[in-house]
Amino acid sequence: LSATAVARARERQDALAKPRGALGVLEDLGVRLAGLAGTCPPPLPEPAGLAVFAGDHGVHGQQVSPWPQEITAAMIAVFLSGGATVNAFARQVGARIRVVDVGVAADLPPAPGLLARKVRRGTRDLSTGPAMTREEAIRAVEVGIEVADGLVAEGCRCLLTGDMGIANTTPAAALIAAFTGASAEQATGRGTGIDDGTWTRKVEVVRRALELHRPDPADPLGVLAAVGGLEHAATVGFLLAAAAHRVPVVLDGVIAGSAALVAAALAPDATSAFVAGHLSAEPGARLALSHLDLRPVLDLDLRLGEGTGALLALPILTAAARALREVATLEELRGASTG
Amino acid sequence: LSATAVARARERQDALAKPRGALGVLEDLGVRLAGLAGTCPPPLPEPAGLAVFAGDHGVHGQQVSPWPQEITAAMIAVFLSGGATVNAFARQVGARIRVVDVGVAADLPPAPGLLARKVRRGTRDLSTGPAMTREEAIRAVEVGIEVADGLVAEGCRCLLTGDMGIANTTPAAALIAAFTGASAEQATGRGTGIDDGTWTRKVEVVRRALELHRPDPADPLGVLAAVGGLEHAATVGFLLAAAAHRVPVVLDGVIAGSAALVAAALAPDATSAFVAGHLSAEPGARLALSHLDLRPVLDLDLRLGEGTGALLALPILTAAARALREVATLEELRGASTG
Repeated sequence: LSATAVARARERQDALAKPRGALGVLEDLGVRLAGLAGTCPPPLPEPAGLAVFAGDHGVHGQQVSPWPQEITAAMIAVFLSGGATVNAFARQVGARIRVVDVGVAADLPPAPGLLARKVRRGTRDLSTGPAMTREEAIRAVEVGIEVADGLVAEGCRCLLTGDMGIANTTPAAALIAAFTGASAEQATGRGTGIDDGTWTRKVEVVRRALELHRPDPADPLGVLAAVGGLEHAATVGFLLAAAAHRVPVVLDGVIAGSAALVAAALAPDATSAFVAGHLSAEPGARLALSHLDLRPVLDLDLRLGEGTGALLALPILTAAARALREVATLEELRGASTG
Repeated sequence: LSATAVARARERQDALAKPRGALGVLEDLGVRLAGLAGTCPPPLPEPAGLAVFAGDHGVHGQQVSPWPQEITAAMIAVFLSGGATVNAFARQVGARIRVVDVGVAADLPPAPGLLARKVRRGTRDLSTGPAMTREEAIRAVEVGIEVADGLVAEGCRCLLTGDMGIANTTPAAALIAAFTGASAEQATGRGTGIDDGTWTRKVEVVRRALELHRPDPADPLGVLAAVGGLEHAATVGFLLAAAAHRVPVVLDGVIAGSAALVAAALAPDATSAFVAGHLSAEPGARLALSHLDLRPVLDLDLRLGEGTGALLALPILTAAARALREVATLEELRGASTG
């Protein structure tokens, strides 16, 4: 963050025609946007660009989800047709969407709007061996960097994460346990809605993976390769690239939270570009955000993924920037009435 | 609420291409919007119309606020110039604003955009006698009804409350204590930011008012006249008229929360049209919303008033309606792929 811009933003915030601190969380957000942009007032975070990274998971074979793996590819078709929730919410805020196949287990026909960057056809089963090789994880991270670079080059002033991958809350739980020190029980949630039996099995799978790999947070890429997913890895790259460009990046749910832990372990300073869009209903999301010291903008019991929570949070970010750009200071008002 | 539209909305919600319940709070909001409109999918809550009801308070003389009373009139000038926070946030969502003088203690010059509906020049001091006569309270309620009627007649499909009035959190605290049974200490907050001494004095003023008037919740208009404010009363009318038109109305902060208690006491069914925009940092706001069983959409430590929190919540409401309107059902998707 630019210290000068941060100081100027705080000063302006206090000079606006409103009581000090009355805009709560929006005041901190506005200061952060100014610090990232290196200028006060900060630019509006528009247009926004959202990447939906899609991948499949070998651990699906352990019956951690009630949904067939084919849903991943089927939902990509829905994203491309414009009929998914992420499309509806993106239209509302004028965000553009990139759908990125970074590791879907099916062959996807080429389609406008689909970026074919498959690193492999789904990960291996993280409960019996490493999900990816270190090289595969790095290639997926690079996909995320490429997508973020592209969106920024196109003029996007805010990036948003999104994900699609049946069973992808299982690697997210394992990553969160590895980086926060939480137990498998604490980090594992019910994803899109699973019954008690499936949840118990999922916890056991995460517990076994942690025992098998003994992930070392000091080796973030090693942890990512062992228990992560291809869309998690791509999101790591996306987050790091956004921070490198000093562009704010809004985290969607628990997948983004787990990826942010990896990104923060690789580059602690990067977190100043991260905005937690919402508090997902997944318990791991709270663990990840609190470890990163990020306060979620929204808390609406969302557990859909796709990037929907990030899109819903975007207008709050825009309003934070707008307050610094458009609200008059007391001094300006005095000048106007006497001038 | 239309039972048919509610049932159709729940059914459609469950049929959309997403796991059941994955949109959390937005699913309930969408169902409510459908029930209010009597049709599923519901219309988008656009355009939105916001009323800033402004008034002054005799209790200001008890030094319950560090701000001079003249700020009320000064801020009205800022609203009319477009330089206030409420203006900036309204531009972002395309909402129109009505600024209504329902009881400012100063003579305001006529201005485009200002509705002159002064009932009296500020209330009397509620800690020494009734703030208003019952007739004055009713006239202020009628102003609120008139403004809501006008906005709905112009085509607004969503109403938002706003308020301006130095010292107006004091009558709000008294109203909240009267209707929820909370103590003066519990219901009284720090408004725009007061020190310990002022807060203690403010609590004492509220306690004295409650002792003096012994407000009876079974006589809502009597309570409103005794310890309320003119902008609180106008907001009561605004809320009731919105509900009568079956138009959703988004409550801003603690002033709206206190007015909603009066409105609910007068017409319990009206609350089905109320959406709590946010949880204000004022402790009374939480008491009021929980008494009304309303879950706030946002929780951002806002304590500005003006309608800012309602405006920030509006895009969430819009997204809730949009999900029911634009997201494909699984059946539609199957039809498209086989058809």
